Amino acid sequence: MSDELRDVGGLSIGILGGTGDQGKGLAHRFAVAGHQVLIGSRSASRAREAAASLGEGLPVRGDENAAVAAEADVVIVAVPWDGHRALLESLRSELAGKIVVDCVNPLGFDKQGAFALDVEEGSAAQQAAVVLPDSRVVAAFHHVSAVLLLDPEVAEIDLDVLVLGDDREATDTVQALAARIPGVRGVYGGRLRNAHQIEAFTANLISINRRYKAHAGIRVTDV
Amino acid sequence: MSDELRDVGGLSIGILGGTGDQGKGLAHRFAVAGHQVLIGSRSASRAREAAASLGEGLPVRGDENAAVAAEADVVIVAVPWDGHRALLESLRSELAGKIVVDCVNPLGFDKQGAFALDVEEGSAAQQAAVVLPDSRVVAAFHHVSAVLLLDPEVAEIDLDVLVLGDDREATDTVQALAARIPGVRGVYGGRLRNAHQIEAFTANLISINRRYKAHAGIRVTDV
Repeated sequence: MSDELRDVGGLSIGILGGTGDQGKGLAHRFAVAGHQVLIGSRSASRAREAAASLGEGLPVRGDENAAVAAEADVVIVAVPWDGHRALLESLRSELAGKIVVDCVNPLGFDKQGAFALDVEEGSAAQQAAVVLPDSRVVAAFHHVSAVLLLDPEVAEIDLDVLVLGDDREATDTVQALAARIPGVRGVYGGRLRNAHQIEAFTANLISINRRYKAHAGIRVTDV
Repeated sequence: MSDELRDVGGLSIGILGGTGDQGKGLAHRFAVAGHQVLIGSRSASRAREAAASLGEGLPVRGDENAAVAAEADVVIVAVPWDGHRALLESLRSELAGKIVVDCVNPLGFDKQGAFALDVEEGSAAQQAAVVLPDSRVVAAFHHVSAVLLLDPEVAEIDLDVLVLGDDREATDTVQALAARIPGVRGVYGGRLRNAHQIEAFTANLISINRRYKAHAGIRVTDV
């Protein structure tokens, strides 16, 4: 794999649903890497609390989702699957023209563990692309453990982030963003129409974590 | 991950559809590891030709699929998706009670590359489980490159084989079989209901191979 990455150091990063563990974990890592990070939530005050919880001195602020969507250069969607479509529909104009990174995993849970839910559009990422025709939708960050992201003792995270999308410049940008997290590579993983299995694979990782008492991720070999 | 693997050295391995590249590649590796390997095909003579093509002195024989299914201890299904259901229906009695390892990837191809096909039962492996209610169906070996398996210059193959199934003894056995291929680990990957995304992920690997000119596989981290 080439080491030539786009220069993304100056991009600000918004995280919709950034008060959840996954969103806060990504916020933490991108802020530590020097990005201006904007945590979004339905409630501006909860967003500000989440930003403050990440510690003093980091370039993280909190605000309502709409303000974050309007301000940030790149916007990560980290909301629960339940509210995914409605939130994106409400932010169509704010997100127009932007790279929107969907990391949502539509999963169900029962006593046998996790399983993939059927999604009308094929995947959460494809739903985002349908709802946001004027945005540049990329799928990425599905498999990163929130526990590891949030653990200040974990200096490097041992996994590859698969980055999927139909817009080469957008996937290149998100691959470079992934690489801002120490230990992580961003690896191109195919077109959006192949996003379902990447989202659904999170169910397998949950099974693997149970069996091996791990925080498993994946590395792609031979690239 | 524990290093305690079941002792599977004495198991004979049948490969239905063993005249294709994936089947021949697996046959080669298991024979080199010392297993009696039985290559199956609709045509006994083509099966014998495939066995002979793997070279002198290896414990590989060829025969009709039904004879292979009846004789082998463990049976790998490596047929094209098109003939999957019909073949398994025709071998229900021969496969009763046996571990049946499905490595079939239901994929379509167009000018944009590979994509996952819809499968009524959810996945090829689940279809096998429906068609073979008296067999112990396991899903594994989806991502191993036939090119690497068949290349005598490749001493070790750098990937983990994800092994899925609902029968712990059967998945443990197949994990140990995977580890008979130098470089490979067999890692438990969840229940059969989560096999779809593992099969479909092969489409992503095809995209990755195109982009990076690689024979990509995956490693599971932290196990």
